[in-house]
Amino acid sequence: MLKPAYEEAHAGFEEGGVPVGAAMFDSRGRVLSRGRNRRVQDNDPSAHGETDAFRKAGRQTTYRDKILVTTLAPCWYCSGLIRQFRIGTVVVGESENFAGHLDWLREAGIQVVELNDPECTELMRRFIQQSPNIWNEDIGESE
Amino acid sequence: MLKPAYEEAHAGFEEGGVPVGAAMFDSRGRVLSRGRNRRVQDNDPSAHGETDAFRKAGRQTTYRDKILVTTLAPCWYCSGLIRQFRIGTVVVGESENFAGHLDWLREAGIQVVELNDPECTELMRRFIQQSPNIWNEDIGESE
Repeated sequence: MLKPAYEEAHAGFEEGGVPVGAAMFDSRGRVLSRGRNRRVQDNDPSAHGETDAFRKAGRQTTYRDKILVTTLAPCWYCSGLIRQFRIGTVVVGESENFAGHLDWLREAGIQVVELNDPECTELMRRFIQQSPNIWNEDIGESE
Repeated sequence: MLKPAYEEAHAGFEEGGVPVGAAMFDSRGRVLSRGRNRRVQDNDPSAHGETDAFRKAGRQTTYRDKILVTTLAPCWYCSGLIRQFRIGTVVVGESENFAGHLDWLREAGIQVVELNDPECTELMRRFIQQSPNIWNEDIGESE
């Protein structure tokens, strides 16, 4: 299930963008949408990987049976999205480059699966090394 | 400062949309952007009033000196946005129709100003009465 999210992240990296990708699946494991961070590509600070995939899945009656796969642990913005819409399951490619708030999600009853995927980790590590300013901007850490 | 946010909410109501509006101001009190919930209008579940205004303000180096005005207390999704990007001040039109998570924002060092504005409260109350299903969908409460 990580493949489409990783492909999105990789495409983002090739575009010079923040390489975080995501995909939403329905309860049968079918891909509903794919998305990636578009801060650089579209000058859109609101498009994180998770919110882009969420947007592209369109209006859904419920998210409790949906699975959101993301290459990187979600920030507060995306964690808030997951919690507000009660997305049932979140699959996290890696949480080494950014720890996120996985316990906060678990406390809200969301199932969190951590993959510790080396490809996701390596792609993000390369980007943060290359473009620390864009990365800091993307998580609100710029001064 | 509530005026542009209320105008956005009211325009959303006239369009048949969820009437939540927002505006972002810089430290001198100049409007950087205005936005409104676009779930119905654009079929975009990711466009809450606050995220729409955030998006339209474009990429900013810092948000600590910014003021986000919203007609309704922010949900988890928008509260996460505010916290991640450390928006300095949030002005809330009303929190009667939706309480939000204002203490969670205050705990994170964000200044929260509550206006308890009767016009915002009345507009939202009318919408929730008219369209409870859309409102529940917008806050992830649909079954």
